[in-house]
Amino acid sequence: MDNIKVIEIKKSVFEDNEIDAENLRKELKAKGVYLLNLMSSPGAGKTTTLIRTINLIKDKLRVAVMEADIDSDVDAVKIKEATGIQSIQLHTGGMCHLDAEMTRQGIDNLDLAGVDLVILENVGNLVCPAEFDTGAARNAMILSVPEGDDKPLKYPLMFSVCDLVVINKIDVQPYFDFDIEKCKSYIKMRNPNAEVIPICAKTGQGVEALAEWLIRQVKLWKNQ
Amino acid sequence: MDNIKVIEIKKSVFEDNEIDAENLRKELKAKGVYLLNLMSSPGAGKTTTLIRTINLIKDKLRVAVMEADIDSDVDAVKIKEATGIQSIQLHTGGMCHLDAEMTRQGIDNLDLAGVDLVILENVGNLVCPAEFDTGAARNAMILSVPEGDDKPLKYPLMFSVCDLVVINKIDVQPYFDFDIEKCKSYIKMRNPNAEVIPICAKTGQGVEALAEWLIRQVKLWKNQ
Repeated sequence: MDNIKVIEIKKSVFEDNEIDAENLRKELKAKGVYLLNLMSSPGAGKTTTLIRTINLIKDKLRVAVMEADIDSDVDAVKIKEATGIQSIQLHTGGMCHLDAEMTRQGIDNLDLAGVDLVILENVGNLVCPAEFDTGAARNAMILSVPEGDDKPLKYPLMFSVCDLVVINKIDVQPYFDFDIEKCKSYIKMRNPNAEVIPICAKTGQGVEALAEWLIRQVKLWKNQ
Repeated sequence: MDNIKVIEIKKSVFEDNEIDAENLRKELKAKGVYLLNLMSSPGAGKTTTLIRTINLIKDKLRVAVMEADIDSDVDAVKIKEATGIQSIQLHTGGMCHLDAEMTRQGIDNLDLAGVDLVILENVGNLVCPAEFDTGAARNAMILSVPEGDDKPLKYPLMFSVCDLVVINKIDVQPYFDFDIEKCKSYIKMRNPNAEVIPICAKTGQGVEALAEWLIRQVKLWKNQ
């Protein structure tokens, strides 16, 4: 675990998060670095999904990951060991979300040379992270089958701000009351343009579609 | 859905939550009302667990429920329909937790005559609700098997402040990498006094132990 950089994130002093997020987005655009903000509940499978996806795209895109957690370092270590890519841990010191300034503290600790895509794994929380623009090019979230298909009704803002909803753990669908079509219709209520990709990160089912989405997004954005 | 009272919670103006929580706790004690603050991630099964448990204890204790949610009313309706007890919905207006003053707004809208136990179903979130004393006699949380056994490592404060951890969805344990003994040892790291009760709210397995815990808690507290 020695080779994982751990950043203790400080609370933002910058007052206008909107402006700071726009500035960070512009700076990253100028550097050709696409930042994806990935959110979910605790335990929805963000890290496992990332490992699977990164292993499919790392020959086509140079990827780095920032793992935000309140305390532990386990995720950054897992990503590094399983994919070999650049991975750092951000400790939020109890804070429930990242804003643009906190995200910048992470970005400043990455070696961005040649990097096409940075993925920020936000704190596991369906409420607060949705309220803060991190400066990312796009927001994505993972909803897992055991959480229930009604989550877009209960956490409306999270689903409104996400361009992509990954539905994970579809292998256990037979054991839960989760109706994918119903869930898709709830997601569309919150954001008619959201794309929905069902996967099972554990077995790899559907992850190719997610990898293709990411590659396509980065390409489109670079040509914008 | 007409007979469910919906309270739009206003942001607290009271600045010292600790003092306000102590005051609310004393007032409830004087009225003989035990308040339980129930927390969890989104989709861990708070509402299903409550329905099962309330149906086991409602002949022995008079129970009322406050369902906190950012937006929807589905939980209060479900509780009312499935148990027949007094149930109100608190809308937090996007806020990610309840503090003591917000809890009081809910309490003030309950008919407390003869009520022994009020259960507050807090917003689904493992971070922020742990930071705010609601004025409850006790805190409890539900961790569900699909979330993973490492959650006490990642959300330390939540597990430190809870007197009881219910491990839900144990019926699906064969399909997930979840080691109950390992999880118990992580929970004890955070809070050596926490009790742990494994259940399956869907089938009812283990819920009797939870019902007994609640009845015992209320009795002990009334005699204190």
